Amino acid sequence: MAGSIFGNMFTISTWGESHGKGIGVVVDGCPAGLELNETDIQICLNRRRPGQSPFATPRQEADEVEILSGVFEGKTTGTPISLVVFNKDQRSHDYSQIASYYRPGHADYTYDSKYSFRDYRGSGRASGRETTARVAGGAIAKKLLETLGITITAYTYAIGPITIDMNQFDVNEISKNFLNMPDSTSVQAAEDYLAQLKEDGNSSGGIIDCVVKNIPAGIGEPVFEKLDANLAKAVMSIGSVKGIEIGDGFKVATKTGLENNDAYYSDGEKIYKKTNHAGGIVGGISDGSDIFIRAAIKPTPSISTPQQTANKSFENIEINIEGRHDPIIVPRAVVVVESMVALTVADMVLMNMSSKMENILKLYNR
Amino acid sequence: MAGSIFGNMFTISTWGESHGKGIGVVVDGCPAGLELNETDIQICLNRRRPGQSPFATPRQEADEVEILSGVFEGKTTGTPISLVVFNKDQRSHDYSQIASYYRPGHADYTYDSKYSFRDYRGSGRASGRETTARVAGGAIAKKLLETLGITITAYTYAIGPITIDMNQFDVNEISKNFLNMPDSTSVQAAEDYLAQLKEDGNSSGGIIDCVVKNIPAGIGEPVFEKLDANLAKAVMSIGSVKGIEIGDGFKVATKTGLENNDAYYSDGEKIYKKTNHAGGIVGGISDGSDIFIRAAIKPTPSISTPQQTANKSFENIEINIEGRHDPIIVPRAVVVVESMVALTVADMVLMNMSSKMENILKLYNR
Amino acid sequence: MAGSIFGNMFTISTWGESHGKGIGVVVDGCPAGLELNETDIQICLNRRRPGQSPFATPRQEADEVEILSGVFEGKTTGTPISLVVFNKDQRSHDYSQIASYYRPGHADYTYDSKYSFRDYRGSGRASGRETTARVAGGAIAKKLLETLGITITAYTYAIGPITIDMNQFDVNEISKNFLNMPDSTSVQAAEDYLAQLKEDGNSSGGIIDCVVKNIPAGIGEPVFEKLDANLAKAVMSIGSVKGIEIGDGFKVATKTGLENNDAYYSDGEKIYKKTNHAGGIVGGISDGSDIFIRAAIKPTPSISTPQQTANKSFENIEINIEGRHDPIIVPRAVVVVESMVALTVADMVLMNMSSKMENILKLYNR
Amino acid sequence: MAGSIFGNMFTISTWGESHGKGIGVVVDGCPAGLELNETDIQICLNRRRPGQSPFATPRQEADEVEILSGVFEGKTTGTPISLVVFNKDQRSHDYSQIASYYRPGHADYTYDSKYSFRDYRGSGRASGRETTARVAGGAIAKKLLETLGITITAYTYAIGPITIDMNQFDVNEISKNFLNMPDSTSVQAAEDYLAQLKEDGNSSGGIIDCVVKNIPAGIGEPVFEKLDANLAKAVMSIGSVKGIEIGDGFKVATKTGLENNDAYYSDGEKIYKKTNHAGGIVGGISDGSDIFIRAAIKPTPSISTPQQTANKSFENIEINIEGRHDPIIVPRAVVVVESMVALTVADMVLMNMSSKMENILKLYNR
Repeated sequence: MAGSIFGNMFTISTWGESHGKGIGVVVDGCPAGLELNETDIQICLNRRRPGQSPFATPRQEADEVEILSGVFEGKTTGTPISLVVFNKDQRSHDYSQIASYYRPGHADYTYDSKYSFRDYRGSGRASGRETTARVAGGAIAKKLLETLGITITAYTYAIGPITIDMNQFDVNEISKNFLNMPDSTSVQAAEDYLAQLKEDGNSSGGIIDCVVKNIPAGIGEPVFEKLDANLAKAVMSIGSVKGIEIGDGFKVATKTGLENNDAYYSDGEKIYKKTNHAGGIVGGISDGSDIFIRAAIKPTPSISTPQQTANKSFENIEINIEGRHDPIIVPRAVVVVESMVALTVADMVLMNMSSKMENILKLYNR
Repeated sequence: MAGSIFGNMFTISTWGESHGKGIGVVVDGCPAGLELNETDIQICLNRRRPGQSPFATPRQEADEVEILSGVFEGKTTGTPISLVVFNKDQRSHDYSQIASYYRPGHADYTYDSKYSFRDYRGSGRASGRETTARVAGGAIAKKLLETLGITITAYTYAIGPITIDMNQFDVNEISKNFLNMPDSTSVQAAEDYLAQLKEDGNSSGGIIDCVVKNIPAGIGEPVFEKLDANLAKAVMSIGSVKGIEIGDGFKVATKTGLENNDAYYSDGEKIYKKTNHAGGIVGGISDGSDIFIRAAIKPTPSISTPQQTANKSFENIEINIEGRHDPIIVPRAVVVVESMVALTVADMVLMNMSSKMENILKLYNR
Repeated sequence: MAGSIFGNMFTISTWGESHGKGIGVVVDGCPAGLELNETDIQICLNRRRPGQSPFATPRQEADEVEILSGVFEGKTTGTPISLVVFNKDQRSHDYSQIASYYRPGHADYTYDSKYSFRDYRGSGRASGRETTARVAGGAIAKKLLETLGITITAYTYAIGPITIDMNQFDVNEISKNFLNMPDSTSVQAAEDYLAQLKEDGNSSGGIIDCVVKNIPAGIGEPVFEKLDANLAKAVMSIGSVKGIEIGDGFKVATKTGLENNDAYYSDGEKIYKKTNHAGGIVGGISDGSDIFIRAAIKPTPSISTPQQTANKSFENIEINIEGRHDPIIVPRAVVVVESMVALTVADMVLMNMSSKMENILKLYNR
Repeated sequence: MAGSIFGNMFTISTWGESHGKGIGVVVDGCPAGLELNETDIQICLNRRRPGQSPFATPRQEADEVEILSGVFEGKTTGTPISLVVFNKDQRSHDYSQIASYYRPGHADYTYDSKYSFRDYRGSGRASGRETTARVAGGAIAKKLLETLGITITAYTYAIGPITIDMNQFDVNEISKNFLNMPDSTSVQAAEDYLAQLKEDGNSSGGIIDCVVKNIPAGIGEPVFEKLDANLAKAVMSIGSVKGIEIGDGFKVATKTGLENNDAYYSDGEKIYKKTNHAGGIVGGISDGSDIFIRAAIKPTPSISTPQQTANKSFENIEINIEGRHDPIIVPRAVVVVESMVALTVADMVLMNMSSKMENILKLYNR
């Protein structure tokens, strides 16, 4: 099936391989009249660009985006917006060995099982480089949501065992350190941890949090297209994500109803919640409070330590993976999580427009 | 949008409210020639039927299923299979109060925000009774998968703070206790915990695990229709689920690549993995080992303790929820998780058929 | 694949066979707050009910509809509306012969080719009785559109060689004759033609026209989800339809640009067209003038004259089809065409809501 | 909604405007292992390239295609295939007038109604240049189908009032004349007709036929995803198509059942049909005989004769459309029809794979 299309109303269709000609995305369903230029997109792409930190792959890519269609006189036209990032640094490399064996933690074996064949250069379509297209498309979703006052912010919550201190949380810190942590006091420990792993030829996992602010109540479609269900799919579809939580997540398992229920209250004009254990979603529909999503990211599978594995000839071998790899992908994945959340929320905001007759009459009554 | 349809190739379209005429599902895309009768479905429905345990709602429902279409001479015809369970026990009840206020932890406020209106009788469409249709549809998916040798087993992993001892795991125990726990030694503590909560008018959360065995390698579609992404959506779409893990889940965050990578090995004829931290899915595609999913379930929001909330007139009030409720939904949700996993796997098994030319030639070569 | 689901935003999922327990439809995506009761639907069903005319099958079916979900206190709730018509007259009949051979013009052979198996009782799912569900679902779409002032009217344009005289067109005549012709002066000739065919054990084709009035300009999505493209699919999906025209249809082939272009003009406040060769759709989008669709219907394949055919044992045989059949299906198909057009227009009216930022701001600006 | 995506299993997502940077398509769902190179696609693109005939626009475009992803070592990988044709001849032109008024027969008014805004350069997304992407994507579908022995051939059946003589039909003639007519004896009359219209500053409509040969029986999904329904949508979605026929099309309206039914017969080993009035599709499913589709094409709306119209300021004006236009688009649209038919058939061939258990067991039995 066509697995590279995401969304129902606001859709993206992505393409490209790690060492192919480029990476691209076609955004279809973006409403007409949204102001958009290449800078809006480039700002997001720069946040996941490699070669910027001691903890990211040194691959040199400017990741310059070009808008090929769908924007006219500075505004979206309502028709497909095609974005492309041409690959620059396709360093010639001998991939003949990778072609023959299955790297642990990588999708080599599963792609071969599915397709009987794979583009083995830098993991091909299964490379993290694929997420460039998600970020480019997500940048447009974010721009659309910002027009409605909805903001989305992701950050690094944990690097291996080092978690941020929520009491030190400062949203402005996120972009100030290589690790995209909102707590400046945790950065040094995390960097030391990573430096040691890098020296050992090893890698680290971590946790990313994402918050959606100012979303109206009512977004999400019962019973299968719930907002949380689609967020879970969107974020789990990012390579390396192995766990998802909404609101209090796994902590709810040990809670009682009395502890977990969020009481409503009113100031006489509007309804609010006293707590937000639910993470802003009840019955699959936004309740107007902040949406909170957490994702667990596995350690980068590419490590320089020798590993045992098997090859296509069914021989057991020891391998040494060379090349330019991230000892951690969490900091670069922060903007990817943000993008997937933005794409999901934008899609469901558009879907919700036809939920009730009063909306329809508001737009069509003549 | 139409949120009550799930799946691409093997689809279900569900309908029905808690206190309406019934609950139903239309299964479309089930291949022709599968042997199917009402007993196949009833067996699954009986596992989620209310009124069977001291820890479930005493609502009396036989939940008898009828096949209305799509089966002829004991086999599926390839056309839609319509299943219905008529509601029997629509105990007349005064819902006028519930209509006016917003119960904490329930979807009352979000439904009103979305639709400006809701069927307030027993939560209407937002009731857990909706999952009857998932189980009925899932029973067919399970039958299809069993024909291919693929089995799916879910069980209670935790009730509040009481988790099973994996060393005591016995799959045959699951159906022998009210709580669907595979470890008989943990049942008593869990029952005691629940009995106390029930007495207190409170409720408990918990954790459900699900294992898929004997799935072929190659199932799942990169990059958005990944098997784990769709499983996350499927299970997160069940009301009350707040967290999802695949394989080692959140534990990967603190692991290193060296610890987390699953080494491949061969016996000279086939490829295996030495460990299964990945939970059977790499790059969104099954690797042939067991698939492992874990879901966190929030405590039932309906508790008999008085709670603070607001009503439609923006007044702050104290409420006392009456009626027949489960102090825990985990045991009854076990078969619901199993069903959603079965629906997802069946869908993706069918989708994968066209992944490579050799498959197409195998079916069409004349 | 799941072929029994239609629509993107306003969807129907239909089920049921000619001689099964019933026929049904689940409507998902209907906005909340639409007033709806069983009479709204029954009125439409009565227009396609058998047993009402000398030219329709004498099968006796009341075709009484029941709403099983999705309507509360007289209004739609925004969740799935399940409708069912139970089959009453499943006259026991010996179908053993039909099971073994392939009736000319029927789907027996193609169903067997596809599924290796079929429900042969009264054509099973391939029966015209399947359209009951389209009409039930279409009735809700029509109700929704009427709320916006959009009306849809279909009628018989031709019965075999007898076409109506457009100068005698009177919309009020349509429901006054068995043939649903808007020109009372053509009815007698058509009835005589049919009476003769019936006597001969033969059947007739015909043409149905459908007009959509008062649709706003701007409905339809370039480039594949054009309004005319979706109307063509919707109407062509009705069994027996073999041709579709929009506006002047095949006549455009012999026209010049000068003749075919519709000139715009203005009264100083609005834009109009002087002619409507386009049938209300330009570039796949409605232009605000009447939409005109025409469909060619093949003669009923069930005729009582002996026919040559082959059977499953690859023998050439002569058959005599018995049973209760329509010598023409055109009059009963009129409301089916109307329903499919309504479903398509309703779906695309909802889809169009997110076409531009000004619409989004109108609904979400806070 | 996202109207630029077509297909369920074999999908295309197209983008690009007439005078933008280029035109492109992302093909997703093409099975892995299909041999493919740029020449396969270029051959099809050359058939619709402008500037090759006295009856086509003199716009000079090489329409050179580049494969940007999805092909490795000469074979498809199963992941998205991105194709791009960069626009070369974006002749600078003053479009300020076109921006202000509504050309008759063009989508100017409907785009403005929908989006409140349009890219007015050469009709933007509503230009026939958009079909470049359909042809590029269709070339891959054709290659896939050819591997299964299925061929698709379209040709010009009529230019204005001049129709081909079916007795003179020679498939080899199609590519030998500018008009893509399979009857060499009709070409001169058609060319004379067009030459006169061109001199008059006028344009012509016409008819295109398309035949699918060697398709297996069983392709198509009841009841809404019928093969003919999807073909109708696919072909009607091409700009300028106003009518569609399958098999005998509108001629069935005046036929009797006895005349129209196609009798089956057997040679003792297989089933055949004596006639093919149905055009190869019964009950929405292919019957193994040739599929026949016919499309009516309206005359090019861009004519050099002065026309009356209105502008955005609601003034009635006379306009003179300048620029490079086709006096007929039928010959260049032949390969577009072929492409849309190929895309539809490829999609439904893949969809059909899961129709029955025996297929599933054939691929998955281990």
